[in-house]
Amino acid sequence: MKRSKLVRPLSCISVSFFLAGGALAQPGQPPERVVSPEISGDGEVTFRLRAPSAERVTLTSGGDIPGVPFGDGLALTKGGDGLFTLNLDAVPPGAYRYNFNVDGVATLDPSNRHTSESNASPWSLFHVPGSDFMDTRDVPHGAVAEVTYHSTVLERPRRMHVYTPPGYERSGREYPVLYLLHGAGDSDDSWSTVGRAGFILDNLIADGSAEPMIVVMPDGHTGPFTMGAGGLALDEFAREFAADVKPHIESSYRVRTGRADTAIAGLSMGGAHALEIAMSDLEEYGYVGVFSSGVFGIVESTDFEERHAASLGDAARREGLELFWFATGSEDFLLGTTEATVEMFRGHGFDVEYHESGGGHTWINWREYLRDFAPRLF
Amino acid sequence: MKRSKLVRPLSCISVSFFLAGGALAQPGQPPERVVSPEISGDGEVTFRLRAPSAERVTLTSGGDIPGVPFGDGLALTKGGDGLFTLNLDAVPPGAYRYNFNVDGVATLDPSNRHTSESNASPWSLFHVPGSDFMDTRDVPHGAVAEVTYHSTVLERPRRMHVYTPPGYERSGREYPVLYLLHGAGDSDDSWSTVGRAGFILDNLIADGSAEPMIVVMPDGHTGPFTMGAGGLALDEFAREFAADVKPHIESSYRVRTGRADTAIAGLSMGGAHALEIAMSDLEEYGYVGVFSSGVFGIVESTDFEERHAASLGDAARREGLELFWFATGSEDFLLGTTEATVEMFRGHGFDVEYHESGGGHTWINWREYLRDFAPRLF
Repeated sequence: MKRSKLVRPLSCISVSFFLAGGALAQPGQPPERVVSPEISGDGEVTFRLRAPSAERVTLTSGGDIPGVPFGDGLALTKGGDGLFTLNLDAVPPGAYRYNFNVDGVATLDPSNRHTSESNASPWSLFHVPGSDFMDTRDVPHGAVAEVTYHSTVLERPRRMHVYTPPGYERSGREYPVLYLLHGAGDSDDSWSTVGRAGFILDNLIADGSAEPMIVVMPDGHTGPFTMGAGGLALDEFAREFAADVKPHIESSYRVRTGRADTAIAGLSMGGAHALEIAMSDLEEYGYVGVFSSGVFGIVESTDFEERHAASLGDAARREGLELFWFATGSEDFLLGTTEATVEMFRGHGFDVEYHESGGGHTWINWREYLRDFAPRLF
Repeated sequence: MKRSKLVRPLSCISVSFFLAGGALAQPGQPPERVVSPEISGDGEVTFRLRAPSAERVTLTSGGDIPGVPFGDGLALTKGGDGLFTLNLDAVPPGAYRYNFNVDGVATLDPSNRHTSESNASPWSLFHVPGSDFMDTRDVPHGAVAEVTYHSTVLERPRRMHVYTPPGYERSGREYPVLYLLHGAGDSDDSWSTVGRAGFILDNLIADGSAEPMIVVMPDGHTGPFTMGAGGLALDEFAREFAADVKPHIESSYRVRTGRADTAIAGLSMGGAHALEIAMSDLEEYGYVGVFSSGVFGIVESTDFEERHAASLGDAARREGLELFWFATGSEDFLLGTTEATVEMFRGHGFDVEYHESGGGHTWINWREYLRDFAPRLF
């Protein structure tokens, strides 16, 4: 057949373009693929970074990776070829956030495409399989959507993540809703990345342990976050939640809206948010979960009790509260806050269920708390 | 009221923990917030990176940011305080991927939480508003979901992104489907991050220019990608698409499944995928779009024509093909491939619509092609 004289073949430059995958290849030299992290079957994880001119590279984490201290992290060893390497030999199953610090500059791992967003900065993310409750198992999967909505309180577009259970798309049914709030070091993306919330729900639902439900994960930060007099400033998000987040879900998703079908839970800052929101409109929430948290500032101030005197003092409003569930690790720096909060609510006649687990203020605990809490709902 | 003796206040360490947002703060010094990128109203973008011990920092991109050359990029200027800075003064509205290269190490911008995944590595992402067709406007928004499915062809879990239009959740209606494929330097996340596909569709639908539709964005890479004899190895994904991707969507979403309600399009490698898939099952596709692409290897080989002789030679199978749409930029290195492909199809009697735009092999063009192509569907 005839072809145009204009035909140009796929040239060397185009091949380079494809292989480069963008900016990470060096011009003038063939890109060599660095595998990082490399995860073996038994929890061995190897990190690698090519940085010939760097002096010191460390692996940093938020404190979740066993053996990697919060702050300074762990140093990688530099090889003769400029490749820095670190081997961890027994990382338990789970998802983990990490970064490299290269001579003082925080960087993501350029060889790992998986990321997780915090409020202000990104993390690299890896997953060590081997856990029945949070692995990506061959079961029916739900979907986790990024949803944009207009916030009337903040007067700008905002984003939330929404998990819909397997079968949602075609069932025509209405579902109960769990509002699941993140911590101060997180974003609305965190529960579905490092938190593996979608996979945990998929597995619980597949095993018949939890009801199919919608899980709404909004953005608890309304700006760069600041400490108010009584701790973190929580009010603006609580107002936005009531005015925008919950109404948006109830108007656009197939959800059941009564108290018996509405739960709210959160970790750390999100637990404080959950208490603030639930006590403001207690008649709307049948289930409340507080993970590694409590009323922030409870030790210094009785503001919370004064603000929520109506809910705290009205036994009738408590009657539809089917579950009021707390869990905190014995090494968590917020343990005292949790204990004081539980005691305060019990003092007001609330039936509080409180679990003290091992461990600290980490996603290892929060994923397990979700696994334990979700089956108790609806 | 009585409180437990165990109460511990929110301590200094906890405040540091909250403010640190993880690994990016240095221990022992108060974290100072670097704003990067800073985007002004008129397309001025300022990048900043604190790296006191670094000698050279460059801004790199995939070639999309005007004025930032592919490869070496543009150098940032080091200030006395160890802060590197670069100012670009007229970046057109759009979304852009970039990284920093710090003394030879590719890094994301630690001050920017927004990321975009390529096949092998992550990018930082920013958005310059000011474009009516791709801004986050105050219109009804659809949702973009991450969907996990089991691939029978690859025998492992896989991920795709799925856009559902505003109102989908409660309408009960069935919708037409556009399968939208990414390029070799991308992942299934690219069309909805740097490609802004969800916002483009939201705006077109709000303006009455496009039908509400579902847009399915699967993962076109079945592994670290390799060049076969005739170019990129495309077959494995084409098989997985037919066996797993399309059946998963048709069984789990409310979609209309006839030819008149099914479109497929892709950019670069995805355009070649779209041709491979559509010509394998031409009776299933009413609309085919090829962005900056064509039959890879068409100059060197007639493999494609031989493989698809049945579709190419059968006028009856072409009759339901309502639109066969190509667009490529005049500076695109694949222009010759596009032209040869268009000529080949026309030689077989296909009614091809071909647009040559300005510009090159960039997301600037691909977003505009989606804006022009989507209104022509269904």
